[in-house]
Formats: sequence, C-alpha cells, structure tokens
Amino acid sequence: MNTYPTTALPDATATRPAQSLQDAPSALPLNPDRLWRRLEALSCFTRPDLPWTRRAFSPEFTAARAWLRDEFASAGLALRLDAAGNLIGRREGHVPGAPALVSGSHSDTVLQGGRFDGILGVVAALEVANALNDAGHTWHHPLEVVDFLAEEPTDQGVSCVGSRAQAGTLELSMLLATDVHGETLAQAIERIGGAPEHIVTAQREPGSVAAFVELHIEQGPVLEQEGLAIGTVTHIVGIHRVEITVTGRPDHAGTTPMYLRHDALAGAAAIITRARHRARALNQTDRYVVATVGRLAVEPNATNTVPGRVRMSLEVRSDDPQVLRTFVDELLQGAAAEMQRCRVSAAARTLTLTQPTRADERVVAAIEQAAHRHGHAQRRMPSGAGHDAAQLARIAPMGMVFIPCRSGRSHCAEEWSEPAQVLAGTQVLAATLQTLDQELAGSQAA
Amino acid sequence: MNTYPTTALPDATATRPAQSLQDAPSALPLNPDRLWRRLEALSCFTRPDLPWTRRAFSPEFTAARAWLRDEFASAGLALRLDAAGNLIGRREGHVPGAPALVSGSHSDTVLQGGRFDGILGVVAALEVANALNDAGHTWHHPLEVVDFLAEEPTDQGVSCVGSRAQAGTLELSMLLATDVHGETLAQAIERIGGAPEHIVTAQREPGSVAAFVELHIEQGPVLEQEGLAIGTVTHIVGIHRVEITVTGRPDHAGTTPMYLRHDALAGAAAIITRARHRARALNQTDRYVVATVGRLAVEPNATNTVPGRVRMSLEVRSDDPQVLRTFVDELLQGAAAEMQRCRVSAAARTLTLTQPTRADERVVAAIEQAAHRHGHAQRRMPSGAGHDAAQLARIAPMGMVFIPCRSGRSHCAEEWSEPAQVLAGTQVLAATLQTLDQELAGSQAA
Repeated sequence: MNTYPTTALPDATATRPAQSLQDAPSALPLNPDRLWRRLEALSCFTRPDLPWTRRAFSPEFTAARAWLRDEFASAGLALRLDAAGNLIGRREGHVPGAPALVSGSHSDTVLQGGRFDGILGVVAALEVANALNDAGHTWHHPLEVVDFLAEEPTDQGVSCVGSRAQAGTLELSMLLATDVHGETLAQAIERIGGAPEHIVTAQREPGSVAAFVELHIEQGPVLEQEGLAIGTVTHIVGIHRVEITVTGRPDHAGTTPMYLRHDALAGAAAIITRARHRARALNQTDRYVVATVGRLAVEPNATNTVPGRVRMSLEVRSDDPQVLRTFVDELLQGAAAEMQRCRVSAAARTLTLTQPTRADERVVAAIEQAAHRHGHAQRRMPSGAGHDAAQLARIAPMGMVFIPCRSGRSHCAEEWSEPAQVLAGTQVLAATLQTLDQELAGSQAA
Repeated sequence: MNTYPTTALPDATATRPAQSLQDAPSALPLNPDRLWRRLEALSCFTRPDLPWTRRAFSPEFTAARAWLRDEFASAGLALRLDAAGNLIGRREGHVPGAPALVSGSHSDTVLQGGRFDGILGVVAALEVANALNDAGHTWHHPLEVVDFLAEEPTDQGVSCVGSRAQAGTLELSMLLATDVHGETLAQAIERIGGAPEHIVTAQREPGSVAAFVELHIEQGPVLEQEGLAIGTVTHIVGIHRVEITVTGRPDHAGTTPMYLRHDALAGAAAIITRARHRARALNQTDRYVVATVGRLAVEPNATNTVPGRVRMSLEVRSDDPQVLRTFVDELLQGAAAEMQRCRVSAAARTLTLTQPTRADERVVAAIEQAAHRHGHAQRRMPSGAGHDAAQLARIAPMGMVFIPCRSGRSHCAEEWSEPAQVLAGTQVLAATLQTLDQELAGSQAA
C-alpha cells in the first residue's frame, strides 16, 4: 500500500508484467515507501544555508556516505570503497566468475542543485538490490550498486572523477589539479578514504562488467512536455566548447557615427543570432543539436563606449559527430560578411571537444521492453547532459533510463520529480537489469 | 618662426586675414610656441603611473591650478576663484558695464584621457587673452578665460560641476553626493578653495555673458576622415540612457532543446542588432543619431546554462528631440515579435534624459566666418559628447569650435592633435571672439 499522491502514471500495483509477454520474469517486489524515504533522507544531507548542496568531499558528503554505507549493508550488500573513492555494494550471483551487472550514479551535487540529480540513480539501484534481498532471489550475475565519486565538477575542476577512474581516463594532471585552498584532487580523494597512489586498481577491464544501467532525471523538459514517463537514452551528446573573441575598437559612444564604428558587441549579436538559427535548422528527427552562448563579457563594458571586444562561450552539443566537428567553423564562415559590415573580426578557440557516446542497442532494447511491460509510455532520446554512464560506456554495454522532472528544471533548488515518476523509473531499471541478467546469461551460455 | 612639423594645414604665417574681407579686424598676434608649450606643461601635471590623468580635486589638479594662476597672471589677467571653484582670469574691455565674452574649458580629466580634452580650450582662451595683452589691444567687451571645475564625472558622480553652478543647475543633492571615502562634493569644492555655502554667488544671470565660445578636440573621427581643420558645432546632442532588461529562463544548455528555450541573450542580441540598424536608418544630413549598447551583463553567465536574464545599457544620442523621445519605445515595439519567438520579455527603464542644446546662430556664423578668413576648411556638425558649453547655453549665446584628433581617439592615452591643428583651432577661436566683440558691440549700440 503506497501513500503517494495519485498521478496519471501507473502506481505500484501495476508493476506486475502483462500476461501476454512470454518468459518475462516476475517483477521484483519494490518498496516504494523505502525508495522515497531514502531519497528524502539522502537529499537532507545538505548545507543548511543552501539546499540542496552536497559538494564532493564536504562534511555533508562524508556524512551522506556514512549513511549510505549503513543502507547498503542493511540491503545485504558487501561493501567496498575502491581506490578512486567509489562506494560499491555487491550482491553475488549464482554463476561463478560472471561479470557484474552494475547500476548507480552519484551522491555529490552542484551548488543548490541535487534534490534528485545523482542520488536517484544510487537509491534506485539500491532498491533493486534490496528487493532482491527481500525476495531471497539470486541472479545469474552479481549486482553492484555504485555511488561514483564526484560526478559534478569538483572544486579542482574535474568531473566524473570516480567513473573516469573505472574507465581509465582519470589523468595524472587531474589528480594534481588544486582547489583555491591548494588541496589537490588526490589529497581530497585520500581524505574521504580513497587511495590515489593505487588509483589504477579502480580501473575495470573491458568485459569485466556485463552491463551498466543508470537511472537519472532528464534534466530537461521533453518528457514532461510530451507526457511520457520514461526516456530511453540512445546517445550521450558530445560537446564542443569554444571561446569566441570578437575584436573591434573602443570608441566614444557619442562622437563616433554609426558608419565609422567597429562595434564588437554588434558583431557578437550577429553571431549569437546565427548560432541559434543554425542549431534550430540542424535538428532533425534523428539528430539532436543545441548551441548556447551562455557566458559573455564586454570590454570595456561602459555605457558611453562602443564595445571594443567581446569574449563569449559557445557550446555545441550533438549526438552527430559531424555537427560537432563543423558547426563552429561554418558558423564563423557564414558570419564573415556580417563581421565585415560591423568592421570587426571574430575568431574561435576550442576549449574542449568530446565525442558523442552511443548506448548499447541491447540495453536500449531491454529498457524499451521493460517500459512496455510496466505500461509506461516512453521515447528514445539523447542525453544532452554528461553522466558517469558516458565513462562506463568505454568498458561496458551502457544504457540510461530517464524520468521527467518538473518543468525540466535541474541544477537548482526547484528540481523535482513526483514519487510516482521515481517509482516508474525504478521499475524500469529493475526490469531492465532483470532482463539483461537473463539475456546475457543466455548469450554467455550459448 | 615656428618649429612645428609641417602639415597640410596653414601654419602661423597664414593668420593674416584675406584682403578681400571688408571690415575684418587684423588677426591677433598668437604665439604658437607659447600655446604648445602651455599644452605640454599642463598635460604633464599627471599621475605619473597613469598618464594622462588629472582627476578633479587630486594633488595633480591642485598643482596644475597653481601653475594656471601664474600663467593667467603673466598674461595680464585679473584672477578670481568663484564660489563653485571655477578659476577665472579677466581682461577688462573699454565699454563700461558691457557683459563679458567668455571662453574656456576644463583642466580635469578622466582616467588616462586628458592629453588635450579640456586643457586645449583653457590654454587657447588664455593665448587669445595673452595675445591681446601682448598687442596692447582692448576689446569693447571684457574677456574672461575660465577653467571650469570638474567637467568630467567626479568621484561623487557629478559632471560639469563648475559650469552647472554658473548656469544655476548644480543641485543640492549633487553637492551632498559622496565619494567612496565619504567626502561630499561640497567638501571637495571647499578643499580646493571654493565656498560651497555661497555657491549661488557663482551663478551668472542671463544677459550677464555676451557670448561663450569653447574650443575642444572633436573626440570623434569625422573631421579627420573628411580632411577638415574645423568643426562648427550646431548642437550638443541630448542623451537618453535606459537600462533594458530581457527576461527569459535559465535552463540546462544540454538538455533543453532549442524550441523549448527562453534565451534572454538571444532576445538581447535581436535588440542590439535592431538598435544598430535603426540608428543608422535615422541618420540624415541634418539629423545625427547614435545608439550604443555599451554595457551588458548575462545571468547566470555560465557556459552550460541558457541565459535567464540580460541587463544592458542603451544610450541614444541625437540633436533631434523627437528621436530621443521615441527611439527606445519604437525599438522595443519593433522587437516584440522577435521577443516572442525567443520566448522572452524585454522592458526599458529610463536612467537619464537630457535634451539637445542648440548653438547660437550668430556665434555659429562667426565661427564659420573665422574659419573662412583663415582658410581652414570646416563643416557644421553636432557634438556627440557633453561639454561645459551645454550648461553655459542656458545663460548665454553659445558656440563651440572643434579640431580633429588622431583616429578620433579620446579619453585614452593615445588622444592626440597636431600642433598645427591646435593652432588652427586657436586662430578660429580668436577670430570668432574678435568678430563677436565687434558685432555685439554694434548691436548693443544700435
């Protein structure tokens, strides 16, 4: 009996699989109250002055980790903290030597934003393990529940610290990066119980993980807008981040006639408009493109001076590598005539370029099947945000399950998903892992 | 014999009037070396670490004022400091009770910009008086040379302090404004020898000044571009300053598709582009319009967040009061459809609105005639910058003479005019005052 507000989504009593689906395993006996209580409890490890804030390595983070250890243990999981500071709870399977099915996410947050982002995926994976434990079931594969260390950018400026370590992409320069107080990332990892000098032991070899599935809030508005309960992630977008500098000349805003100006902000405005139109035009049914000028600084930034220089960030995200490769160059080529009319020049400098990550088709299919079995309307979609799953995809078949969040808001105090939405996502996560356990055991046996 | 670099402009030997101009008085025997030497000397009262900086009330300013007193005295001028801290040197005329012809400018500067801005008009007026003294001439009217106090915005945020006091527009709230150290403008005026409690005694009644003529660098590129030696100012532009706020919604830049964004910077870019096109279109032969977005702040200003709010300054300057009144409203009305497409709203808040000031047609004609007599090519033009002359216009027939400055640069360390250009301007100033002395004496006698 659950006490959640009623919504259009199926409640816990609807988790039984449709009789028509042959061979579908019985649904795990999830406990919706326990699931929601854990979400509430974990979110409350927050800076009291700035909810919901639980920065990696902070006192709130350490306290939350202590609480998580107890919860993992109460679910019958064997605990370990790997050298990279990932907290791992393991339930053994009955096939000796089988690689683990892994699920989880992260318990750290950005400033003010972490009511669901991250912890949902940890708590939901824990609920799956706990339900297995409650039911006394054992899968073919071991199940590992992971709280990855520091998915959000740390004060040293490194993101996905724990998942990078497992994927072997955590570089020495990242470990040596310092925060404003001079603490290195390595020192911070050691402070919370990791062993940075043995960081390579955290690395997982390809083949050592049967599959990785992460449940997360969408962090965008699409599912809510379309009235869907589940998003099945097909790609995690690649990101091309550049700094664009538009150079003109700072002149007196009163005495310099319009036709003699070199107005850098006029040039920047033309680029901003063109980037927006271009990104809109490039979107197709099977191609996701967003382009954002999010940060902009004018020099000298004075009311009575024609802007002499503008520096701005442009971030292009797409699941299409071709778009990532060409967007910025083609944008600036297309804007050349406008730059000439504004009598300014524009140049772009690449800051970072990451490629799109593709979800594993078998995992995608398992998620779709799981959503269908539970009667949850779903769609395929890309993830516009980065996730630990993008790192794990380097060493394992990867998939992600999205649930809607209110108004698409995330990374802010208003971040919210309804209990029924959380439950729906957890049902799909559980059923997906269950299906993969059966399918992968079959294929391994074959 | 002068030692200036040769240029296309007439040198000092060309100051004799053309024989064909009937009734033209003989040109005053200007001393180009003295003129240039005084410019150099006065500019060198600067913060040594940041040339050419001589902020009002600073030690450099006080030292420059002491030097100016000596120079005024050496030119035979009777000195006084009025209650507002204006330094005035007076040479009597021979018609008893005649109102004074007044010329001058200011010796304070903005940070780094003041190699010519201001001091040219003071030193040139002084040269006219000195030449009269050298020649033993006496005009009908008294001639007053004024170094107005603090034309540039003071650390208390008030500009045209001395000329406002003479025009009766220096308000009590301005006198009570404080700088970051808590010093009021009144205290600062007292510190340099003024008497703020008697500030009304500095006020000049309409009719008490026969005419005011100010020589200044153009601070813009037009004269240089057109190869002209002299600008005859017809108006000092009015200024409408507004703050425009564009309000959208801060969303995740990865997960929010283009069509669901409320991008405040996209809206701002459309307004910036439209303001530029509109200002260009409104310019006509007899109408000057410039519009500048010089200051802009994005919130939250993060690479990976769609801009939720943009605040920006828009400054419209024109000699047409109708343009000043309607530009901003019509701009936002015209941008309404674009704001809707960007799913944002835009609103403007007026910060200041000053009306254009018209130069006196008789003074304008005298300047044109003077330029013609000396063979200096000239054009009528508005002043896009504010000047003490705009204040003096409230109580006296006003005119301004512009000379070119290199590349139109001003308020920066590169501000520069050639000695021959300085001399040409001073010749025109002298001849203008001479003409007005004769004409106004005639009209007063009539």
